[in-house]
Amino acid sequence: MSCVLSMDNFADRLMDAVKRKGNPCVVGLDPRVDQMPGFITEALTEKGPESVRQAIARFHRIVLDAVAQLVPAVKPQIAFFEQYGLGGILAFIDTVQMAKERGLIVIADAKRNDIASTAEAYANAFLGRTRLPWGDEPVFDADCVTISPFLGRDSLNPFIKTCSKYGKGVFILVKTSNPGSSDLQDVKEAESGRPIYVRLARTVHELGQETMGKSGYSSVGAVVGATFPEQAKELRQLMPRSIILVPGYGSQGGTGEDAAKCFNPDGLGAIVNASRSITYTFQSPSISEKEYAQLVRNNVEKMAGELNTALGRHAATAMT
Amino acid sequence: MSCVLSMDNFADRLMDAVKRKGNPCVVGLDPRVDQMPGFITEALTEKGPESVRQAIARFHRIVLDAVAQLVPAVKPQIAFFEQYGLGGILAFIDTVQMAKERGLIVIADAKRNDIASTAEAYANAFLGRTRLPWGDEPVFDADCVTISPFLGRDSLNPFIKTCSKYGKGVFILVKTSNPGSSDLQDVKEAESGRPIYVRLARTVHELGQETMGKSGYSSVGAVVGATFPEQAKELRQLMPRSIILVPGYGSQGGTGEDAAKCFNPDGLGAIVNASRSITYTFQSPSISEKEYAQLVRNNVEKMAGELNTALGRHAATAMT
Repeated sequence: MSCVLSMDNFADRLMDAVKRKGNPCVVGLDPRVDQMPGFITEALTEKGPESVRQAIARFHRIVLDAVAQLVPAVKPQIAFFEQYGLGGILAFIDTVQMAKERGLIVIADAKRNDIASTAEAYANAFLGRTRLPWGDEPVFDADCVTISPFLGRDSLNPFIKTCSKYGKGVFILVKTSNPGSSDLQDVKEAESGRPIYVRLARTVHELGQETMGKSGYSSVGAVVGATFPEQAKELRQLMPRSIILVPGYGSQGGTGEDAAKCFNPDGLGAIVNASRSITYTFQSPSISEKEYAQLVRNNVEKMAGELNTALGRHAATAMT
Repeated sequence: MSCVLSMDNFADRLMDAVKRKGNPCVVGLDPRVDQMPGFITEALTEKGPESVRQAIARFHRIVLDAVAQLVPAVKPQIAFFEQYGLGGILAFIDTVQMAKERGLIVIADAKRNDIASTAEAYANAFLGRTRLPWGDEPVFDADCVTISPFLGRDSLNPFIKTCSKYGKGVFILVKTSNPGSSDLQDVKEAESGRPIYVRLARTVHELGQETMGKSGYSSVGAVVGATFPEQAKELRQLMPRSIILVPGYGSQGGTGEDAAKCFNPDGLGAIVNASRSITYTFQSPSISEKEYAQLVRNNVEKMAGELNTALGRHAATAMT
């Protein structure tokens, strides 16, 4: 691309990072303390939030150091932090900070939303600033956040406004990776005969117009699971300028070929997350810190290789 | 009711509290520090999370002391806490604790959800326990939590299991109070010709069977806004044994008559929340702490009176 990308636009920053790193991989950070390697769990002997915070933060420092040069972005899943209460939230704040210090884009996977004034509070928490007597303060200050469209367009608007104001992004749930996503998202509408996810994709496409970057992509993206490749193909066409965040690759069963359906023929326009298949694949809890870091790097390189091969085939097919 | 209610069942505990307090009012706790009375904001001079925590906790201590004898439950809206980051989360933990100490039922309004294993983490965070090396620990330990059905039934199941295990409850979003709720929730299905919210109500009704209390109500409830009284009437009939949590009363425009549509003819089966119209109605920021506490009490008594009058008329109509 010959045009100059704007670092004030989330989509441009993300597409720039994907090109610099040479792959669209996102490493998911799901802290499950009881499943971490022994060098973490054995050090966790004192009760209390500060001890839990230190364990999670140390685990993520190792992961982040291992992947910072390899991938464009990381995706902390806040549910797994929240389940540790105060210690988890402290570790979430640490993790976002450490990832940003290492030049990684941070996708807060929070699937938040509420009615308008409350949605604004969530937008402030994850992307914007909150008013305090001594001035407006950034809070978690992630680069983007995943949000739910269930409450309708007036619940999405405060996030879009915050994205425009602070150069941030959102990924709106359109077709999630779990089997049960069909219960609501696949329901066919009487008026159009089309599934709900088609309606949602059209909303994402429309909402994206205001935050278009010089890369040709918008800061309003969509979540589409790798586990539904047929739907992904259709959704890719309905939202040509939206970046798709693809969960469901790896442990959930989605392959590189499946994920490739979420990309445009230029090989861009999507990022693919893997969590457990990157960070929880060690066989023995007695793995050393050095071996663990190498394993994480190997997992990322394998994923990047698989995706890039699939994207090469995808581009070749698109040209014929 | 002559049967003995089980205090291990959330629905029984809630219906018991409604009967003891003689009204179905829920006080919403939405911390907006910049809009609090002067006796709070003027004391907030030091920067930092501990200072924000103290301000919010002090404000809520006054509100909780004012309403503890009057209402069955309070509903902290976690978005307004989260927007203050660490200080807000500390204040959320304090607020839940203070409310429980005063015998109030705590509804964590979090509208959380995610795919199954992640939904389990949220269920642990709000209702259950999280595994740590020294044992399973309760986290926020609210009595119930609001959750979103957008991801389908497999995302709801972990919450239902946690409710059964720990005697907790959920309120599943069915028809929210905001104007934009029509965008998705009112879409008519091709197969049935009925709106999505009807499908959701049927899911809530089915999921409730496992957590039925001796009160005849289930611990799986629904959120239905007072701003849509016609839909509320229909939804009440589709979910006869689910407790309905009714937002949208007061500042959002719902009246006592509107909210009454969510109740069964026995005058039970719903609870009605008001937030701003209870806690943010003072005219001058120079109001004293004592005057403020009295104002909050007056607002609650006015609301309880209005609802009970409307419920009386509702019952009379149902009998004719």
